[in-house]
Amino acid sequence: MDMNKTLEGRLASLRRLMADRGYDAVVLRNNPDLRWLTGAERTFDDESAHTALVTAEGQWLHTDSRYFNTFRERLGGDSVWDIDQDVVGHAEWAAARIADTGSRTVAIEDTATVAFLDELVERTADSVELPRLHGDICDLRMVKDTEELELLREAQRITDEAFEHICGFIHAGLTEQQVRVELENYMLTHGADGLSFGTIIAAGPNGANPHAQPGERVIEQGDMIVMDYGALYHDYHADMTRTVCVGEPSAKQREVYDIVRRTHEACAAAIRPGVIGREVHELSVRLIAEAGYGDCYGHGLGHGVGIEIHERPNFGRLYDKPVPAGSVVTVEPGIYLPGEFGIRLEDCGVVTENGYEPFTASSHDLRVVGH
Amino acid sequence: MDMNKTLEGRLASLRRLMADRGYDAVVLRNNPDLRWLTGAERTFDDESAHTALVTAEGQWLHTDSRYFNTFRERLGGDSVWDIDQDVVGHAEWAAARIADTGSRTVAIEDTATVAFLDELVERTADSVELPRLHGDICDLRMVKDTEELELLREAQRITDEAFEHICGFIHAGLTEQQVRVELENYMLTHGADGLSFGTIIAAGPNGANPHAQPGERVIEQGDMIVMDYGALYHDYHADMTRTVCVGEPSAKQREVYDIVRRTHEACAAAIRPGVIGREVHELSVRLIAEAGYGDCYGHGLGHGVGIEIHERPNFGRLYDKPVPAGSVVTVEPGIYLPGEFGIRLEDCGVVTENGYEPFTASSHDLRVVGH
Repeated sequence: MDMNKTLEGRLASLRRLMADRGYDAVVLRNNPDLRWLTGAERTFDDESAHTALVTAEGQWLHTDSRYFNTFRERLGGDSVWDIDQDVVGHAEWAAARIADTGSRTVAIEDTATVAFLDELVERTADSVELPRLHGDICDLRMVKDTEELELLREAQRITDEAFEHICGFIHAGLTEQQVRVELENYMLTHGADGLSFGTIIAAGPNGANPHAQPGERVIEQGDMIVMDYGALYHDYHADMTRTVCVGEPSAKQREVYDIVRRTHEACAAAIRPGVIGREVHELSVRLIAEAGYGDCYGHGLGHGVGIEIHERPNFGRLYDKPVPAGSVVTVEPGIYLPGEFGIRLEDCGVVTENGYEPFTASSHDLRVVGH
Repeated sequence: MDMNKTLEGRLASLRRLMADRGYDAVVLRNNPDLRWLTGAERTFDDESAHTALVTAEGQWLHTDSRYFNTFRERLGGDSVWDIDQDVVGHAEWAAARIADTGSRTVAIEDTATVAFLDELVERTADSVELPRLHGDICDLRMVKDTEELELLREAQRITDEAFEHICGFIHAGLTEQQVRVELENYMLTHGADGLSFGTIIAAGPNGANPHAQPGERVIEQGDMIVMDYGALYHDYHADMTRTVCVGEPSAKQREVYDIVRRTHEACAAAIRPGVIGREVHELSVRLIAEAGYGDCYGHGLGHGVGIEIHERPNFGRLYDKPVPAGSVVTVEPGIYLPGEFGIRLEDCGVVTENGYEPFTASSHDLRVVGH
């Protein structure tokens, strides 16, 4: 794959936005946006270390000395980006480039800090207008290109493989923390560059807290275990949840599992390009309520995934926009019974012209472990 | 220890700053500052989920529904904080509290986002002034209280213990990544809540890159290995670097190690309350240059550590302020020889009335491993 061609495609989509809105330039400080636009991998761990300016004619990156050589290596000698090493502060650099390029209307992301904006305002005085971008570049990032889909599929492949491994490892007597360490290690030694987020391993009643942190609880026979985790691969995230049962599930555990599974599959089947995010979420709320567990499901149905673990679009009550083909989203309904157990079933996949194609290959059947 | 007494002390230091500057209130969005002011542990993984308002009379926290119950549990029933669950957006909540309390001059941290500021400006119209805080709360956080010093010492104790463990584990034939996984696991299963940062394990020529990422390089006999890592404990960070040798070091490796060690110890001996951060850094630069390696040391000598891995104060060329008693800082000179090896020796400790007391207990002697 010709990476420069991919990057030119991304820059072209930004320039179309700039032309539509009448911006002469855009100043970028948001690391995920910079990762996407430059293609430089694993270089954005410091939120304050990089600034970019894009005009109709060129693209410049300003980076601090710790990253300068790494950027040059990762972008390659034929990069479309010009890289400046920092000798001045980031706002001072941006103001100078804005003056050099004669830009008058310079959009700035509203995720930038007040400190950066204040200094830019002061240094550009009254000569420059600074309209705000409200996640517009996140909108551009929604539709994934071929390069991105390959990285996301590989992140999920590692994640599925780790699920098979951990199912053979779990038994009563281990702590949640021991399961977490084994699962994370497996991913880190089988191709993952890192973790998508802090792994959730929540056994028994802990599973009823959707954001439980793994602890010293000892896993018991009959526990349902919610495992929500994912591999990070070249800065792209996997996100998957499976709930397994240690030994044979009770009738109630089976019943609730089946409701979550049916809800998951009905919602996945309702996804198609143009569907309104909120409407798919509302379908999940309705199905779980009809099954009698309306009070036991408080979170959104799903979210976009890419360079960030939470991106646009979103299957939630506040997301009123259409979900485009090429976006990558999770489907993750759950039922949480305080004091008893929780169940969540999550896949991640791409919205295609025909519907929804999960990357996740692990079965939806309730897995019994610990034999 | 009476945690509410500790928290009242922290709030009192903020209120003295407010009184000095004539602020009626402060709006806080910065997670490390909120961790420090509320005492609520491990609840601040989402930068956008929390907002606080502090006036002379009260302190309110606004948090999103995912964290509401956790906050109430962690703060305890007798908390000095009032907690509001989000029903509106954060800027809307802050504007309403500002109006309720009749605040007119409301300081805002310059680390807040442009989006938050824009909405706050719009909602408070012309009735409220919003002066900026430029790291002033980071300055308050510099001087650690007894509670904080205990947590930092415990984080370092786990880190030292992991060093002993990994010295017995390393041998030629392992990859950097295998050493990383073993080291991180050890900490996570021996008391650490997480990692201070992504562990650096850099063997042989990789050690010459101060920010190397562990990879598939196989460790060889005669390699120097730079290991920079730390345990996270109740949100407080440890930070330590040791460089070990796999088998007997060469004469050059010994010579360079001794220069780094002498530089480290001379700089540590120069630390006392009131010393200017830049001057201690300049001492390290001078000593390494006098030893003939002036071109092989490009980073700062050290940095503050606490709820953040990089805090104030700082031993760097731009830090012109005095280093106060009670601040916690690293000392970490290094020499990097491209194509050959790198050596860095880092302790972390507290500035006392009499000088500098490292938390780090591991010896400065060059450790030979891999027998």
